[in-house]
Amino acid sequence: MKKPRLFTPGPVEVAPQVLEAMARPLMHHRTAAFQELFLGVRSKLAAVSCVPDDDVLVLAASGTAAFEAGLLACVPAASKVIAVTGGKFGERWLEMARRYRYQVVELPVSWGEVAEPDRLSQLLAAHPDALAVLITHSETSTGVLHDVEHLARVVHQQNSEALVLVDGVTSLAVTELHPREWGLDAVFSGSQKGLMTPPGLSFAWLSERAWARGEARNPSFYLDLHRERERQRLGQTAFTPAVSLLRALEVALSMLLEEGLENVWRRRRRNNLAVLAAGEALGFQRFAARPTPAVAALCSPAGIAAPAVVEGFARRGARIAGGQDHTHSYLIRPSVVGYADSYDALIVAALLEDVLRDLGREVPMALGVAAAMEVLQST
Amino acid sequence: MKKPRLFTPGPVEVAPQVLEAMARPLMHHRTAAFQELFLGVRSKLAAVSCVPDDDVLVLAASGTAAFEAGLLACVPAASKVIAVTGGKFGERWLEMARRYRYQVVELPVSWGEVAEPDRLSQLLAAHPDALAVLITHSETSTGVLHDVEHLARVVHQQNSEALVLVDGVTSLAVTELHPREWGLDAVFSGSQKGLMTPPGLSFAWLSERAWARGEARNPSFYLDLHRERERQRLGQTAFTPAVSLLRALEVALSMLLEEGLENVWRRRRRNNLAVLAAGEALGFQRFAARPTPAVAALCSPAGIAAPAVVEGFARRGARIAGGQDHTHSYLIRPSVVGYADSYDALIVAALLEDVLRDLGREVPMALGVAAAMEVLQST
Repeated sequence: MKKPRLFTPGPVEVAPQVLEAMARPLMHHRTAAFQELFLGVRSKLAAVSCVPDDDVLVLAASGTAAFEAGLLACVPAASKVIAVTGGKFGERWLEMARRYRYQVVELPVSWGEVAEPDRLSQLLAAHPDALAVLITHSETSTGVLHDVEHLARVVHQQNSEALVLVDGVTSLAVTELHPREWGLDAVFSGSQKGLMTPPGLSFAWLSERAWARGEARNPSFYLDLHRERERQRLGQTAFTPAVSLLRALEVALSMLLEEGLENVWRRRRRNNLAVLAAGEALGFQRFAARPTPAVAALCSPAGIAAPAVVEGFARRGARIAGGQDHTHSYLIRPSVVGYADSYDALIVAALLEDVLRDLGREVPMALGVAAAMEVLQST
Repeated sequence: MKKPRLFTPGPVEVAPQVLEAMARPLMHHRTAAFQELFLGVRSKLAAVSCVPDDDVLVLAASGTAAFEAGLLACVPAASKVIAVTGGKFGERWLEMARRYRYQVVELPVSWGEVAEPDRLSQLLAAHPDALAVLITHSETSTGVLHDVEHLARVVHQQNSEALVLVDGVTSLAVTELHPREWGLDAVFSGSQKGLMTPPGLSFAWLSERAWARGEARNPSFYLDLHRERERQRLGQTAFTPAVSLLRALEVALSMLLEEGLENVWRRRRRNNLAVLAAGEALGFQRFAARPTPAVAALCSPAGIAAPAVVEGFARRGARIAGGQDHTHSYLIRPSVVGYADSYDALIVAALLEDVLRDLGREVPMALGVAAAMEVLQST
């Protein structure tokens, strides 16, 4: 029997009680019952996002749509934006901005490295007319957690007009993220990562000054956060909401709040460090200079092709992500960011061992598991 | 976050697709659709029970009811029966037979030991008028797998009239059990053990000669296997069937047949041996002279109270069984007999380590897990 296990950085394992909520009879969305559900979800979502009482808008769309809606909502057409890249997602926001004919200046970052505040500072000095900086907080393709707090401080020190727009897709509820305290202007995320819910919902939070840019905004119809904000404050949505997903989200948010956000962050950091430690004990190398808890990016040992490791996991019923683009041949990206506890991290460690054995390596028994357990005990 | 995990020898973890089947809309049981479902379940159940094309009856009741119905169906009132005890379940069948005023002769067995064929032989010689022998195949309270094949051979050699009635509650689909080849006359089981289904259904198979004793049978109403057989052959039941459970069972049976019965047995044996090995590496002692794959009965090390270990698992979100009656203070009974694979066995091993640490023991990292992995690799 191969028990299917999902160790990917989204979609993630979902708790049975979250799935159960998806199966409940549909409620119509123009009812008091929906309004109550939705206002409750919005309140919990704001709490999990560390912006209590603020508007976190919910869209029936994926995270990319939320980023797009946010960009259009607060960055005037044809203005200049700086895009920090360094991975698939950073590159996606750059491409999106170009598609909308913003004047895009790239801050290129090598995959696996962190964006250097000094280099951003230089770019800001060279482009004092930039009206926004696009940053990916947790870059899932490389496993890097960029220091958004530091980068945002640099932006505000040098350019009081530039907004800081942050992709929080795999950082929301995964690691510390304080939008207001850090001076961020927008944070976007999705349901199928740290929020442990099936995919299909995305979220957008904007700062007051970002909302205030609305008059100069790039026009849009479906992705109009200004219209959504008006409706969502009343417990309604501009377009038909994904009711079943909202119900599932309500259960998942309650689980996260019950656990406590600090505990959630600690759990995910610890479990990811355990997987990284297991990998290192087994001859893999960390790829990310500053690892995000959302994913353990590991370079396979010499002589072991990363796709064979991914395939080895699959043969044992477990799914992990491999490397994207030029990292395809050497990167694996297992993740325990979903409905997973420390014993799931041990399973990833054991699988990593077993797959290496499947590939002909001699591995002392429990070498990776023991390394993971050491981390779990001490962190 | 404490992820709840069920490592008890029934009820067991159930696969999500089995739970999903429980949530489907109810069908009425006097329909062609139900008939098709039920005949399919019966056919698969016979295959999983190694009695293809025979009648395996399904009752909306627990395993005890199936045993009771079987006893009444083929053992005439007031006749003499030999009950092999040696644990809670063996004692239950003895008590049941006494309650029905059979003349009961006990073959007492020390808890943890196997029933000796020679002692049964002596008892058969002393009681040539016995019409039935009651044996528990997998005695869940002690973790012992009695050698039913050998015991049945002894019965038939000495007493051509005596029927061999077997409690297969935690052995069906868990370990080799060949009712016809071994000359058994009745096997009873339940849904919530090896069949990985929620509790509420039980099963009864009788040999041809057991069915033929029907004329002298002890009367009963609800628990009348003869009436049930007539109805169930037509895809119906004498009383309202538990439709949702049957649907769930259908999914679980399909999973087991897809895996292949030999593979199922091998998986469960290997996983249980892994848990036993982990326990031994950590200072526990095997309790069962001949372990059943259904449960790992382990005596706690000196200075460690078994209930504290059970409680330690619970604090970490996992449920295992403790010892019953006089074994309460020193026995634990974790089980990976449900919807569990080898990585679940590793979790039990890791939990056992962690709980010992919680209780103040110094345990080298991965000591138990490594022992479990050794077994899993080599078995």
